[in-house]
Amino acid sequence: MDILEGIYTRRSVRKYTGEPVDRPMVMEILKAGSWAPSGLNNQPWRFVVACDRGKRSELAKLTRYSRILEDAPVAIAVFLDRSAMYNETKDHQAIGACLQNMLLAAHALGLGAVWLGEILKNSTAVARLLDVPESMELMAVVAVGHPASRDQRSERRETGELLLGEF
Amino acid sequence: MDILEGIYTRRSVRKYTGEPVDRPMVMEILKAGSWAPSGLNNQPWRFVVACDRGKRSELAKLTRYSRILEDAPVAIAVFLDRSAMYNETKDHQAIGACLQNMLLAAHALGLGAVWLGEILKNSTAVARLLDVPESMELMAVVAVGHPASRDQRSERRETGELLLGEF
Repeated sequence: MDILEGIYTRRSVRKYTGEPVDRPMVMEILKAGSWAPSGLNNQPWRFVVACDRGKRSELAKLTRYSRILEDAPVAIAVFLDRSAMYNETKDHQAIGACLQNMLLAAHALGLGAVWLGEILKNSTAVARLLDVPESMELMAVVAVGHPASRDQRSERRETGELLLGEF
Repeated sequence: MDILEGIYTRRSVRKYTGEPVDRPMVMEILKAGSWAPSGLNNQPWRFVVACDRGKRSELAKLTRYSRILEDAPVAIAVFLDRSAMYNETKDHQAIGACLQNMLLAAHALGLGAVWLGEILKNSTAVARLLDVPESMELMAVVAVGHPASRDQRSERRETGELLLGEF
């Protein structure tokens, strides 16, 4: 799939078929995330993959969007390693770039994914559940699966409205 | 260009030929940025485009990497509209996703680009120079041009090293 087409056709996919996602595809998504740029190339992203139904159910209890994590065959928790940080704003931006690469990679692989941020309200409980080291701060959970449908719609403002000035 | 290939072959490009970048390509880069996901689809990104040599020279004085902004035919300043914010961490992540789309779009268009973050130390001066409204906070400047070469190298950690756990 062409990059620009991929960027414009990617949607948040929240319903999945029951089909599992092969591990090589999950690893490709993580690899794509890791090729995001980061300040000083500090690569502050770390991942935990949860395919196990029990673990996903426990994770699901920590968000309002529990059905998504119950249904998706894979949940990928993305953490910021605070011991690798150099600047809070720039590291958060780098994690955003990593997440976008992951979503685009899932789309390129014919999968559907959604970036879940609301679960950050329970970031400490998620970190405990996934048994990560002390320095890890939850940044998002990405749910991934085979899309049950491809009719998601979305909208964006006209580019001209976002352009404040030209010199 | 294929999405995954684009993600893996994109590099920070810091040297450019003298050739200008057509405005439709610049607008395509902004449009790609705008198709990033954001929490509540709040689309907090705003842009200022500087092609004018004088304006780029003034901008160049505000960063250690002045040569890049002197040479690149286009500088795109990316702002966060604080009046559209809903959560600082998540909005910074969304801007990171937007920036990554912009870099990938430039790469897809055969251009080269680099994300400049060091200039944030002078964010107030940049905002004043580019005459943006009070609510705008500088997030990055992206330099764009036709690459003088394509031999940039980069490295990432092995994916396995980034995977803290699997359930």
